[in-house]
Amino acid sequence: MQLSHIDKNNKPMMVDVGDKSPSFRTATACGTISMSKQAFDMVCKGQAKKGPVITTAVVAAIMGAKQTSTLIPMCHPLMLSNVNIECEEISTSNSFKLIAKVKCEGKTGVEMEALTAVSVGLLTIYDMIKAVDKTMLISDIVLLSKEGGKSGTYTRG
Amino acid sequence: MQLSHIDKNNKPMMVDVGDKSPSFRTATACGTISMSKQAFDMVCKGQAKKGPVITTAVVAAIMGAKQTSTLIPMCHPLMLSNVNIECEEISTSNSFKLIAKVKCEGKTGVEMEALTAVSVGLLTIYDMIKAVDKTMLISDIVLLSKEGGKSGTYTRG
Amino acid sequence: MQLSHIDKNNKPMMVDVGDKSPSFRTATACGTISMSKQAFDMVCKGQAKKGPVITTAVVAAIMGAKQTSTLIPMCHPLMLSNVNIECEEISTSNSFKLIAKVKCEGKTGVEMEALTAVSVGLLTIYDMIKAVDKTMLISDIVLLSKEGGKSGTYTRG
Amino acid sequence: MQLSHIDKNNKPMMVDVGDKSPSFRTATACGTISMSKQAFDMVCKGQAKKGPVITTAVVAAIMGAKQTSTLIPMCHPLMLSNVNIECEEISTSNSFKLIAKVKCEGKTGVEMEALTAVSVGLLTIYDMIKAVDKTMLISDIVLLSKEGGKSGTYTRG
Amino acid sequence: MQLSHIDKNNKPMMVDVGDKSPSFRTATACGTISMSKQAFDMVCKGQAKKGPVITTAVVAAIMGAKQTSTLIPMCHPLMLSNVNIECEEISTSNSFKLIAKVKCEGKTGVEMEALTAVSVGLLTIYDMIKAVDKTMLISDIVLLSKEGGKSGTYTRG
Amino acid sequence: MQLSHIDKNNKPMMVDVGDKSPSFRTATACGTISMSKQAFDMVCKGQAKKGPVITTAVVAAIMGAKQTSTLIPMCHPLMLSNVNIECEEISTSNSFKLIAKVKCEGKTGVEMEALTAVSVGLLTIYDMIKAVDKTMLISDIVLLSKEGGKSGTYTRG
Repeated sequence: MQLSHIDKNNKPMMVDVGDKSPSFRTATACGTISMSKQAFDMVCKGQAKKGPVITTAVVAAIMGAKQTSTLIPMCHPLMLSNVNIECEEISTSNSFKLIAKVKCEGKTGVEMEALTAVSVGLLTIYDMIKAVDKTMLISDIVLLSKEGGKSGTYTRG
Repeated sequence: MQLSHIDKNNKPMMVDVGDKSPSFRTATACGTISMSKQAFDMVCKGQAKKGPVITTAVVAAIMGAKQTSTLIPMCHPLMLSNVNIECEEISTSNSFKLIAKVKCEGKTGVEMEALTAVSVGLLTIYDMIKAVDKTMLISDIVLLSKEGGKSGTYTRG
Repeated sequence: MQLSHIDKNNKPMMVDVGDKSPSFRTATACGTISMSKQAFDMVCKGQAKKGPVITTAVVAAIMGAKQTSTLIPMCHPLMLSNVNIECEEISTSNSFKLIAKVKCEGKTGVEMEALTAVSVGLLTIYDMIKAVDKTMLISDIVLLSKEGGKSGTYTRG
Repeated sequence: MQLSHIDKNNKPMMVDVGDKSPSFRTATACGTISMSKQAFDMVCKGQAKKGPVITTAVVAAIMGAKQTSTLIPMCHPLMLSNVNIECEEISTSNSFKLIAKVKCEGKTGVEMEALTAVSVGLLTIYDMIKAVDKTMLISDIVLLSKEGGKSGTYTRG
Repeated sequence: MQLSHIDKNNKPMMVDVGDKSPSFRTATACGTISMSKQAFDMVCKGQAKKGPVITTAVVAAIMGAKQTSTLIPMCHPLMLSNVNIECEEISTSNSFKLIAKVKCEGKTGVEMEALTAVSVGLLTIYDMIKAVDKTMLISDIVLLSKEGGKSGTYTRG
Repeated sequence: MQLSHIDKNNKPMMVDVGDKSPSFRTATACGTISMSKQAFDMVCKGQAKKGPVITTAVVAAIMGAKQTSTLIPMCHPLMLSNVNIECEEISTSNSFKLIAKVKCEGKTGVEMEALTAVSVGLLTIYDMIKAVDKTMLISDIVLLSKEGGKSGTYTRG
């Protein structure tokens, strides 16, 4: 077994997907940002009524997914057919969980697009709240599932 | 106290830094990606000899820092004077820790640039290893410290 | 009837075009910039002989069309097969009319690409003339027609 | 008098601002999108409650302002210190008016940034409503005022 | 015979590829950077052991290929299926030769993507060595071969 | 002596310019594209009358200079105060020479911006002519001179 992105001369490389047939792909990823109770309450119940912070994060996450192949060196450009972002409010831990589901019909999967969407969305929440809490923690960014392509379906155990 | 990025009509907004004087700013952030022993060994000791995967992640992290104001909606464009990326190999947990230190002389801080560098670097490691391990976890993305600006020095406790 | 880009939780979303079949799409949009007679004459007849200002606007409009999915949050990335820009000189009103026709074979339409091309082209004309006329007006940006896709052909009445 | 962006060989050029001193700059621009009563009501009162459409447009306008020097060929990169977007609901004409105020301390003005913010914001509203109204009109994009720089203050008559 | 990118009114234009069928395309380009013996030795044998300079150039070249349609005004966006970069060390002339091979299934060729990858890779080598040698020369950037499309196979004589 | 962009662990790095004082910087670079007599004549004398091909290349070169820190991994973002592009028609060798002069007041030089402008401009000429000549050669890309900064003035011998 060897790393797919390193060639025999130990040089980084893209994976050649030229011979693959396009197939329908989905990938779902999630991640969490936790903060102080004060900050969490300001986003959820206070002045901001969750709307603008979370809406801005959703917009940023969708736009971030579209920048994946610009940001991640070995990613292929892909014509995403959908990026859907959900946000769960977890009051027991003063945290927000972002879930990104990305779809595409193409020659390679959209795992990185889902993970990038989640990361950019969480960074956007951080940015908008950092004036009241510098101790926030971004964590638990994982791939929940993927479908399509040669390797088929994967679901996190 | 209120969120700095939400105006009185509950609309997202940039913080107006027009009246601030430029000062020297630094910010240091870190984050971790943990993986299977097999994947960790392939990156560190095996074929790849850590070089190309980590070098690619370092390059992507530096370039990602420069895209912060494009990705995070309310961030100001800044003329970064340095982005430094370190990578620690943590064999006890089969993980890599990225540390980004960003410098700038400007009217606003570079916390988001450091956090974005870390996030993009970790996503790049994920991308280059995902063929051998889909269960990787990106975690513990935090601000370690910042200096400069009106709010002065912060060090994570 | 409901807005296609707002989900049931009142959150912005992309339209999922994953189940659509690709079809040939075209969209034509136009818009106008009007200015003082002095500025108009400088662009058309004077030193600049229309060439460089309008050529620069045409180039910017084509490049702008290709940035549509980067600029407009809910737009899908698309593989444009053509962007054609025409410029009409309307001496009776000291104005220029830009017409953009965009083509694509894809799962969603190219109306936004045509409208974005027109907008960026008109802004470019504005930029290059603003030193002699700050009162310019950009106006009448509309979709003239579209073809292809489930909703079929539309022609502005 | 001659066009500032055309050189003596009739070639497009940037204005050389190297010898200028930085000064505080502001620019305010506005523009309007008008639509059917049905579409206007859906944005303002109906399902969408104005929130997500207008919030998305505000975010896109701010991000668009930061892309000005990427989109408009002869614009200088600038370190914007603020982009503020207001949206007025004009029920008598079923239209929305976006007003962008941009600030910067720099060697050249921010008129184009304000006009670009308005244009991208209006295009975003168009995109999110186009499924219910293809006849929308983007219009009346003008510079309302500017301050700073050698040419001083300008207010639209 | 006439230039494909100039219309009958002497205006730049994209080539309309809307009626073409997608086909498999490849293009291979190369180019060279030559430098002082001192600089060459530092990259190849000295402190840097060629690794980080050339690895960074390879990463930049791959990322540059993906920006081709953003940089070159009349290029179509394309879904590249592979970008492969090789680097040859030519000690007789103290130079490095970059070779880029790009693949795509699409309606137009990838010659510009291969040439852009080479150019960006060479500029990156220049950037990382310029502190020790300002006399470096980037040269001999040519298309070596292409396959696919209506004009078929081309091999440089 | 050692490479400025490689740290002691053999990792690529940006140069830290945080402690430098801003100074006025200029850099001038040039490069050449040579082609068949037929292609050269079409650009210079024929249908295209040099205008649109060279104008498009000038616009692309200026825009390319502004993308330097996005393309070249270790480049700092800079607020360019001018990018000037000249084009010389060299009929004895059927070639065009592009000369880019870039200005900035900043903490680091603009050599890479001038070289990137030249490269992107030459690639644009290539793109617009490639349908009539696939054998074109881009060559002789060098730094002609630079001023400003600690290392002072350099003029190519």
